[in-house]
Amino acid sequence: MGRTSDARDKILSAARTLIEQRGYTALGVAEICAAAGVPKGSFYHFFESKQALAITVINEHWTEQRQQWTEVLGRDRPPLQRLRDLFLATETVQRVGQQDNGKVVGCLFGNLALELSNQADDVRQRLQEIFDAQIELIEQVVAEAHERGEIAATVDMHDAARSIVAQLEGRVLFAKLLNDPGQLEAMWRNCLALLGAPPLEAEADSPR
Amino acid sequence: MGRTSDARDKILSAARTLIEQRGYTALGVAEICAAAGVPKGSFYHFFESKQALAITVINEHWTEQRQQWTEVLGRDRPPLQRLRDLFLATETVQRVGQQDNGKVVGCLFGNLALELSNQADDVRQRLQEIFDAQIELIEQVVAEAHERGEIAATVDMHDAARSIVAQLEGRVLFAKLLNDPGQLEAMWRNCLALLGAPPLEAEADSPR
Repeated sequence: MGRTSDARDKILSAARTLIEQRGYTALGVAEICAAAGVPKGSFYHFFESKQALAITVINEHWTEQRQQWTEVLGRDRPPLQRLRDLFLATETVQRVGQQDNGKVVGCLFGNLALELSNQADDVRQRLQEIFDAQIELIEQVVAEAHERGEIAATVDMHDAARSIVAQLEGRVLFAKLLNDPGQLEAMWRNCLALLGAPPLEAEADSPR
Repeated sequence: MGRTSDARDKILSAARTLIEQRGYTALGVAEICAAAGVPKGSFYHFFESKQALAITVINEHWTEQRQQWTEVLGRDRPPLQRLRDLFLATETVQRVGQQDNGKVVGCLFGNLALELSNQADDVRQRLQEIFDAQIELIEQVVAEAHERGEIAATVDMHDAARSIVAQLEGRVLFAKLLNDPGQLEAMWRNCLALLGAPPLEAEADSPR
């Protein structure tokens, strides 16, 4: 039992690293099993197909990321500061990924959205749900800032949350293309601009 | 001579369609030649490798897109309106792509940036140059709006142009993921927010 679930974990871990480094299409089951150090025969004991594995990798990554987002966005801090903390945490994730892989790996969800969404309907649907959940987490914090009068009264909160997630994906794309996690530093002022929040005051009361 | 260049064009056209639909990695030279209706042997007469073909597809697409961007952004219209025209033109490109392919194909450069930039240094470098050129084209128009006092005086124009292109890539990602070119409708108000331009006045004097 211990050994069995160990093999599954090894496959998942190897698959995630390889997908982050080289995408989904380039990989074969044999290569994933070789990297995981498990016999190829055991793959289909755990996963129906390579696509089923991709969905599991996506789900496990979202479980981790949602936990991080929920923790950061739920802190006992002013709402706009929590958004800033999220951007800093995202930049750190990309820096650590760069150290581990030699290159910025970007966002697993964004990568797979562009690579696979037109080819695999179940991947598309799962990624839609995940981006919707991200937008909802951001929107809750935007609503708190709105209640406190810290953002423009006229802002459509759901739309603003969607714009922030779109900006984050675009900035992570630049971070990957330029192999430079510093591309995410602009997220904070971009977010304030998208929310119609006064940039200087907000800057002044935030810790560096 | 006519026949020879015809074969090259057919390969390029087929490759672009296939790359837009399924990405670069999934394709083989044989499949591209079959789709182009040219003998496989002729491929290496025109292209040194599949990667060399990808660079040529990128360059030809940028030649077309740069022409469109230059035309739209150079019109005799107020600068912010020209940015709006660019977003409308981009949305139209995605709608036409959706009609032709059945699905929104997204941005060829963004797709390949996420798929290939960590695996092919020449693709990475060419895409960096193209995004820099896009940012520069936007920045020129932002500078005009700045001179006319139509955007916030404090805006860093280069940084704002980069943020607009990042937002555009993020919005195109959503358009592809949701198979919905309408995701680009928000670009105009997102752009005004990023530039610190007053949203309502700008909305009022723009044609629908």
